[in-house]
Amino acid sequence: MSSNEKIPVGILGATGSVGQKFIELLSNHPWFQIVELSASEKSAGKLYKNAVNWILSTPLPEEVANITVQECEPNLKSKLVFSGLDSSVAGGIEEAFAKKGYYVVSNSKNHRMDKDVPLLVPEINPDHLEIIKTQDYNGGCIVTNPNCSTIGMVLALKPLLDNFGLEAVNVVTMQALSGAGYPGVSSLDIIDNVIPYISGEEPKLESEPLKIFGTFKENKIINNEIKISAQCNRVAVLDGHMECVQVKLKKKVSIEEIKKAWDNFSSEPQKLNLPTAPLKPIYYFEEDKYPQPRIHRNLDKGMAVSTGRLRKDPLFDYKFVVLSHNTNRGAAGGALLCAEIMKAKGYI
Amino acid sequence: MSSNEKIPVGILGATGSVGQKFIELLSNHPWFQIVELSASEKSAGKLYKNAVNWILSTPLPEEVANITVQECEPNLKSKLVFSGLDSSVAGGIEEAFAKKGYYVVSNSKNHRMDKDVPLLVPEINPDHLEIIKTQDYNGGCIVTNPNCSTIGMVLALKPLLDNFGLEAVNVVTMQALSGAGYPGVSSLDIIDNVIPYISGEEPKLESEPLKIFGTFKENKIINNEIKISAQCNRVAVLDGHMECVQVKLKKKVSIEEIKKAWDNFSSEPQKLNLPTAPLKPIYYFEEDKYPQPRIHRNLDKGMAVSTGRLRKDPLFDYKFVVLSHNTNRGAAGGALLCAEIMKAKGYI
Amino acid sequence: MSSNEKIPVGILGATGSVGQKFIELLSNHPWFQIVELSASEKSAGKLYKNAVNWILSTPLPEEVANITVQECEPNLKSKLVFSGLDSSVAGGIEEAFAKKGYYVVSNSKNHRMDKDVPLLVPEINPDHLEIIKTQDYNGGCIVTNPNCSTIGMVLALKPLLDNFGLEAVNVVTMQALSGAGYPGVSSLDIIDNVIPYISGEEPKLESEPLKIFGTFKENKIINNEIKISAQCNRVAVLDGHMECVQVKLKKKVSIEEIKKAWDNFSSEPQKLNLPTAPLKPIYYFEEDKYPQPRIHRNLDKGMAVSTGRLRKDPLFDYKFVVLSHNTNRGAAGGALLCAEIMKAKGYI
Amino acid sequence: MSSNEKIPVGILGATGSVGQKFIELLSNHPWFQIVELSASEKSAGKLYKNAVNWILSTPLPEEVANITVQECEPNLKSKLVFSGLDSSVAGGIEEAFAKKGYYVVSNSKNHRMDKDVPLLVPEINPDHLEIIKTQDYNGGCIVTNPNCSTIGMVLALKPLLDNFGLEAVNVVTMQALSGAGYPGVSSLDIIDNVIPYISGEEPKLESEPLKIFGTFKENKIINNEIKISAQCNRVAVLDGHMECVQVKLKKKVSIEEIKKAWDNFSSEPQKLNLPTAPLKPIYYFEEDKYPQPRIHRNLDKGMAVSTGRLRKDPLFDYKFVVLSHNTNRGAAGGALLCAEIMKAKGYI
Repeated sequence: MSSNEKIPVGILGATGSVGQKFIELLSNHPWFQIVELSASEKSAGKLYKNAVNWILSTPLPEEVANITVQECEPNLKSKLVFSGLDSSVAGGIEEAFAKKGYYVVSNSKNHRMDKDVPLLVPEINPDHLEIIKTQDYNGGCIVTNPNCSTIGMVLALKPLLDNFGLEAVNVVTMQALSGAGYPGVSSLDIIDNVIPYISGEEPKLESEPLKIFGTFKENKIINNEIKISAQCNRVAVLDGHMECVQVKLKKKVSIEEIKKAWDNFSSEPQKLNLPTAPLKPIYYFEEDKYPQPRIHRNLDKGMAVSTGRLRKDPLFDYKFVVLSHNTNRGAAGGALLCAEIMKAKGYI
Repeated sequence: MSSNEKIPVGILGATGSVGQKFIELLSNHPWFQIVELSASEKSAGKLYKNAVNWILSTPLPEEVANITVQECEPNLKSKLVFSGLDSSVAGGIEEAFAKKGYYVVSNSKNHRMDKDVPLLVPEINPDHLEIIKTQDYNGGCIVTNPNCSTIGMVLALKPLLDNFGLEAVNVVTMQALSGAGYPGVSSLDIIDNVIPYISGEEPKLESEPLKIFGTFKENKIINNEIKISAQCNRVAVLDGHMECVQVKLKKKVSIEEIKKAWDNFSSEPQKLNLPTAPLKPIYYFEEDKYPQPRIHRNLDKGMAVSTGRLRKDPLFDYKFVVLSHNTNRGAAGGALLCAEIMKAKGYI
Repeated sequence: MSSNEKIPVGILGATGSVGQKFIELLSNHPWFQIVELSASEKSAGKLYKNAVNWILSTPLPEEVANITVQECEPNLKSKLVFSGLDSSVAGGIEEAFAKKGYYVVSNSKNHRMDKDVPLLVPEINPDHLEIIKTQDYNGGCIVTNPNCSTIGMVLALKPLLDNFGLEAVNVVTMQALSGAGYPGVSSLDIIDNVIPYISGEEPKLESEPLKIFGTFKENKIINNEIKISAQCNRVAVLDGHMECVQVKLKKKVSIEEIKKAWDNFSSEPQKLNLPTAPLKPIYYFEEDKYPQPRIHRNLDKGMAVSTGRLRKDPLFDYKFVVLSHNTNRGAAGGALLCAEIMKAKGYI
Repeated sequence: MSSNEKIPVGILGATGSVGQKFIELLSNHPWFQIVELSASEKSAGKLYKNAVNWILSTPLPEEVANITVQECEPNLKSKLVFSGLDSSVAGGIEEAFAKKGYYVVSNSKNHRMDKDVPLLVPEINPDHLEIIKTQDYNGGCIVTNPNCSTIGMVLALKPLLDNFGLEAVNVVTMQALSGAGYPGVSSLDIIDNVIPYISGEEPKLESEPLKIFGTFKENKIINNEIKISAQCNRVAVLDGHMECVQVKLKKKVSIEEIKKAWDNFSSEPQKLNLPTAPLKPIYYFEEDKYPQPRIHRNLDKGMAVSTGRLRKDPLFDYKFVVLSHNTNRGAAGGALLCAEIMKAKGYI
């Protein structure tokens, strides 16, 4: 696809940490081309390179550096917009765009739990996309992707749910600093330290999976009823959320059956060969010490989840660890994959 | 007590990280005086200051610096010895000392599960000390203290066990680097990283509490039967093990009742006013973000445990976090407190 | 001195990181008693414990926790005030207090270079205090202490200047995060990283020593004319500035003569036995790997400087490293020592 | 070039940290193909994947994983061998290979200062390669690349030397942990810390540039006579050595002339389009806060050096910072580039 034939896209909240990751991932994207960037009043009118405090370790793409930032008003030429807006403003702005007919793919929490908004993980619930047809947005729509700590866990759980049934899930997270945005966590608070609390995180992790694993029937998403308990901690890791997970299954299964379920797992994004989809959504590591954030977070474009240490549990059935990249798979990359499946399936 | 009247003590494994902590804590101790240091053949014959790679941030006490290190042979003048020996050699050496009539207070794992050896936390099971009378060691004895990840948890659980009864405990740890000894964990393995595995740690955390909480009856320790599941992780923290704990209790209780049980908890070391005992064994913090390793690990001489974030749990009854200093409360300080209670109660 | 006989003091900027350190150091001070706390409008009217985000690892002193914070207006009862104000507001507020007759001891940069304001390091230039008599402040005065990166270096240089003469000084710093205040440096910017720039730091380090080492004559401070070059870096250390220093001396001297000059150095704060003065201002370490921030920053109440690695230099005469605690010796502790010498010498 | 046509190569010290980096960089190399791996007796006979503790964040290449490790005896089929051997054994083994006719390209320090061995930085002194003809090794040869802290600095200095002449260089380093090998520096020694000493590093940094910048004349390398002073520190950074450099030049030049000299610098590896050569050896960053290890170390395949903060110096002429990747450009990547230029110029 030549540059001219690509679908033009805009980014809302382009200067924030998620906005930057969108830019990194959309640079050289085969289908989409960034043509517009929106941010707060403070940045509007400036060249992007002058408005942003670029924090990624890949250089700011030249073709984006000289785009003039606009305010977040629904008068963009691109019909598809990615939102990395802060949740303090995302709600209203995203609605305003949708009402004007834009396709809004959002990483913000505001509309995740709206009844007619899909909370989409393309490998898990692509059928939920159908619900956007019930949205009352004049042809526009809002599609959301889950919280960064949810997405790794639900990917690892999906094959267990499908093959063995899930009754209860217990999870304790050790989450990376980039999940708090920039500047986020002060260095004085986290070097030689752990913070056993992340505001609002545990409720998300206990509720979002129920919707994601919900059944789409008669134009409604009926939530799943797994019981979940979550405890969330911040640790001194730059990228990559690590989670200790315990599960109670509906069927008695062996360790080998679970590993096989993970190994065999492949879904629509893989079949459709979406550009941002991992070749394989789940990798299991046999070494006791694996996975680790620094070593495995970038696996398969940072879009796969890594699992390890699967073993019997005295209180549940099994316990294991899951790792996923919180700003790739867990934020901008996840949202981009949502847009790709929307395009591939004709929603865009 | 003048220096001459103090009880002379020796340290086995004096150059290791636990050995160094013993020296730090015994410096200026009101009852005990270090007079002998033993270590491996490699160090024997050298002045301590030349044999040790001192890693603590308090200076090496002058009166210890010039003691000549001896081999770990049971021919010391001190009848009381503290063992910080590596578990690869601790078993045999400690036995050899006990058989020659020494009182061995050990931080090593080797004899912890011996039927006639107390696994002692002075605030919890001081009555277990009585079992040393059944040891077949010609007047000597072996007393052990638990693993560094066990001790914080059992202290926080003890008031719950006593007041409400415990059915099940689930724990996920984020453990400090000093728990691995020196040089221990390579910096290349842990900066910007988490390691979801610590060799041998989970079995200890699942089994040691059963003995500690056991009943001493007819010269036997009968293990408790709480069900425990543990998952252990290494994080980039120098000192202080953080643990996310969930409990199923035998009684229905309120949050306030649990806080009150913690707040009221006080035990023999406090009544006996032992020099190394914390004034208060358990501190609860109301702030969501507390406790934290860097801020609270040194609380009350590093001998108290800090708890926080007590809240209802969807799968168990309650969940909360516990923090304790792994080399003070969890190793050398814990062992020292064992010796103090032995002295106070006439076992020495 | 009973609590009633202590000199009442106030703190300006009490909620900031330097303000907190003042509170920590003034708790249980033998001469001074905190009675008033001032901060921004936002905090005024609140109890201190509710206004502050306490970041130190020692607990907030109880007697301070319940003081009601006031605005920074010159209507305090305490005549002596310590200023930890941000430099964006310190200039005017400090002047306003001085004009109303307050003794202002400030850690802010604003008035450091005023001709009639001493830039005081009590071990180095206590005679400069005399210049406050020329201040036009209706009986009040302003006294400043130097930047945190300056103070360690000048203490190590002072004995060289006095004994051998100094021609040129080259310094490269590796500075701690607490020097940037709170929240200061984002964790995303410094974990696994170095930042080779600290805004405004190099000019301070190149100019402040000239005034500190200046001669007080005929009511004027005549600057010294040493040539100084500074390069400043931020590293992932919580507390403690490390500096690589090279010196060109006026006399040829041996390594032993320099070590002896450091070892013999003692000054008025030591003679006057000031409560916050280190017993010994400079400690030299023979081990190649010393000093180190984590190990030596708290030496002698965090008020001493540690030196090491003294060796011949191919371009200058000698090179060595200096370490000092940037918020104790380098900020609040340094300012407190200024107030102590003012009191001891009758300026207060 | 098909796999069959590639030059077969062996790696000496294949399990060490430099050996692993050689494997990473040689995987998919267009000219060279790893066919043999040698390591210590302990590893010999095992499959590589079972012998190695793989520490890199890219996965162990499959085609290498199943090679059986051999002892370091000069009976390999590959005539070209890369040595990542520890210096405790490298000297003799490398000689033994060279004497048997092997081309040894070494990252070890042992032969760097041998009169007939080139200390090669392909962008700087490719003509020195000619000296291998004077080696007395039966057709074999030894070629070395410099120490990891030397190589970044000399690349930044080369255009200054060529255009303006160099009289004196002062350097203070902040070096990454990977430079110490694996396990290298204990986490307990470097988290929240700086170590102001690296054994043997300063002498290398003060002497190696003199040979690298030497003149090759009449089959001899005549050392340059720049005066250099070096101070080396270890900081909590995984990869990437940062250096604060000051220079005294022979000509008066402007800042713009220096930037231009850096920008224009290009050399034989660029002209020959060597596979591992950076497109541009030196990148200058205008932002005060740049370069930074985490952000710029991987620039241009990790083979470029980044400079920044060029400014006038009160004691020398100019000061600036240099950053380079210590295990890519500074070790295995640098050695690989040596082999590539040897091949391109017909020495292999």
